[in-house]
Amino acid sequence: MGYMKADDAEAVNIALLGFGTIGSSVYAVIQKEHDAILDATGVDLRVAHIVEKDFSRAGIDAPSDLFTSDFQRVLDDPSVSIVVELIGGTEWAFTFIDGALRAGRDVVTANKQLLANRGAALFDLADQLGRQIRFEASVAGAIPIIKVMRESMIAADLHTVYGIVNGTTNYILTAMYRGEGDYGGTLKKAQDLGYAEADPTADVGGADAAAKMAILASLAYRSRVTMSDVTYEGIERVSIEDVEYAKQFGFVVKLIGAARLVDGRVNVRVHPALVPENHPLASINGSYNAVYLKGHTIDEIMLTGPGAGGPPTATAVVSDIVNIAGTDAAGFLQSCTCYKALELCPDEDMRSAFFIRFKVEDRAGVLAQIASIFGEHDVSIESMIQKGHGDEAELMLITHPTMERGFFAAIEQVAGLSCAKSRPMTIRVL
Amino acid sequence: MGYMKADDAEAVNIALLGFGTIGSSVYAVIQKEHDAILDATGVDLRVAHIVEKDFSRAGIDAPSDLFTSDFQRVLDDPSVSIVVELIGGTEWAFTFIDGALRAGRDVVTANKQLLANRGAALFDLADQLGRQIRFEASVAGAIPIIKVMRESMIAADLHTVYGIVNGTTNYILTAMYRGEGDYGGTLKKAQDLGYAEADPTADVGGADAAAKMAILASLAYRSRVTMSDVTYEGIERVSIEDVEYAKQFGFVVKLIGAARLVDGRVNVRVHPALVPENHPLASINGSYNAVYLKGHTIDEIMLTGPGAGGPPTATAVVSDIVNIAGTDAAGFLQSCTCYKALELCPDEDMRSAFFIRFKVEDRAGVLAQIASIFGEHDVSIESMIQKGHGDEAELMLITHPTMERGFFAAIEQVAGLSCAKSRPMTIRVL
Repeated sequence: MGYMKADDAEAVNIALLGFGTIGSSVYAVIQKEHDAILDATGVDLRVAHIVEKDFSRAGIDAPSDLFTSDFQRVLDDPSVSIVVELIGGTEWAFTFIDGALRAGRDVVTANKQLLANRGAALFDLADQLGRQIRFEASVAGAIPIIKVMRESMIAADLHTVYGIVNGTTNYILTAMYRGEGDYGGTLKKAQDLGYAEADPTADVGGADAAAKMAILASLAYRSRVTMSDVTYEGIERVSIEDVEYAKQFGFVVKLIGAARLVDGRVNVRVHPALVPENHPLASINGSYNAVYLKGHTIDEIMLTGPGAGGPPTATAVVSDIVNIAGTDAAGFLQSCTCYKALELCPDEDMRSAFFIRFKVEDRAGVLAQIASIFGEHDVSIESMIQKGHGDEAELMLITHPTMERGFFAAIEQVAGLSCAKSRPMTIRVL
Repeated sequence: MGYMKADDAEAVNIALLGFGTIGSSVYAVIQKEHDAILDATGVDLRVAHIVEKDFSRAGIDAPSDLFTSDFQRVLDDPSVSIVVELIGGTEWAFTFIDGALRAGRDVVTANKQLLANRGAALFDLADQLGRQIRFEASVAGAIPIIKVMRESMIAADLHTVYGIVNGTTNYILTAMYRGEGDYGGTLKKAQDLGYAEADPTADVGGADAAAKMAILASLAYRSRVTMSDVTYEGIERVSIEDVEYAKQFGFVVKLIGAARLVDGRVNVRVHPALVPENHPLASINGSYNAVYLKGHTIDEIMLTGPGAGGPPTATAVVSDIVNIAGTDAAGFLQSCTCYKALELCPDEDMRSAFFIRFKVEDRAGVLAQIASIFGEHDVSIESMIQKGHGDEAELMLITHPTMERGFFAAIEQVAGLSCAKSRPMTIRVL
């Protein structure tokens, strides 16, 4: 498709699929920044169609004649060069993007679940057809992590990606850390403030972060990681006691996405973690996101910013649109990056340090019994706090890094002891 | 120039000008990452010439036959498509880059002083000739801030750029904050550890940071800011007492580069500043760099990482080289971004809050006298600490934001009072 140069302005017509929070913000940002973008780049950006079932904002937030419920109208309009998919979900979105690519359109999407589940087929198709799919807004809102990983980390030799990539859970955990309430109370407050959905399952359960980490891992290690390759747990089990005790040990509890290259194999997972107070990720508060990269040549880099919200996310979408207009679709910087097929490293082959909290009978010999089980499984203790409560004692332990296989075998044995008065709560230490 | 596609590997021959810390690291990173880059992008990256007066590392760090002291050899070799300038300075570097562009080569440079002083002429020439100049390594080492500002902040509507862009001064101020010594002692330690040059003037005096802020301001506001447009002061005047008292008020002293858009005018300067403890920039420690962007649509974004060092900086250089190989030189994303000619906003038209420290006679009426002078110039005090030392008192004040013109007029008057026992030290508050 023939795109414009800066001194040779040319209209770029786009179609927006979906007019919810992000879609309407994209429309508003395009209106507001139209002239600045035109002056800076020569791109005369125009929204030609808005495909949406719900017409309630037609005529208020955007002219009524742009609205249609029929995607075929977009495909039938040869003036449209870029289709912007913001409807979410993995079925219709797939069909629309597949159709747009086959009809010669480039695509911008913010759909992390689609890319994490069915990305390979779409990227392959785009490559075959010489088209682009850009997806900056799919991870971490306004933070340009996709472009940075694709285009700037070319010689970084990455081996670790840590992400705080879900604003809802970071808001809740920050509020718990600040003593503003327990999990239930802070979740309710997050919902009242619009930081959490009415049904928060995908956020608090870790699935949202898992999809984003699949995308980041695919870019970091140049090997396709799909949603089903990512193990994840959420923050529902994290109690105010865990947060308080972690603080006493000098840690902040965060929901961490971790994608690591371990001896040539890839491990990607999402779980609550104790982050040392002086680690850069410990200072990411509220609904903010951060992505922290480590590589053999770059040492470490971190990007932080708002992970959601209409205008910030719309900024990412609009930069994708302008970048498509400014680049050759067939260039290697725009192609699928997953040319390797690395093996996955299962969780039990990973080494981690752990925080453990549980109640035991407070009598002689109990500690020796527990210590002996840990010893048999090569789990060594770095620090411990014990608190008496009548005839029970609560134990809080931090282990040295240990093989997870052995650790969880030890925990099962400890949980089965007659002196154990609660199931041990375990949280990894970053 | 015909560059390659991923499935169609083609040699990209480069010439390195300069083989110091960065040049030799670029060579080493290219050797180490050659195969990974080839596999990922199809770019078969080869160093064809190393132009260097000092041949002491020839044959040790790189093959002797690559070395030459004659730049003409590069221009005479038609296989060289990219010239990488790492010699520094503003005279020979200008001549070499000018010559390379005119001979049809694209250019990568890390030379902040050259770009901040004479960038306009080079960017104009590159645009005329349809060539690229990339300069990711010129600001903040491995942090990809140039690409992010050029290509991702397209609709961000930036109005503020804060940078901690000099590692030497941040190392010294961090050490002072941690009580490891005064300015002289921590500078000496920084020199011993290689974080400061034998002649540290450009770093501690603010000129290095000023050049980097000129570059970032030019990108943020799309209007050329040169070195002579930037006012700067360094950290030589900052005493351990200032750092300690600032801490008591809840601030960390940092050398801050600030580029602001104020009612359509641009103000760029570098100065020590009191940063509130809970501001993201307060947590940037040691020799690390950070760039913090605020825009009307993105809220705020911060990028952090190592600001110097061979391999991190080399990573930025190599990503520039591969990006040139992967893009159309004439595309608008690669053109000069400075299409506006905004006016500068002089410092006296800026509003700032200030920290003030000075000694006065400890007798009745002195405070009233000082307060009355501040009042006449519309300077209002937010907080104050007074410490008695015999017949002298030390005053530490923090003002509300105030017009700098009036503030400095008030300070001159206060300094002239007979009760003033020391010249007032003033540091801006971020």
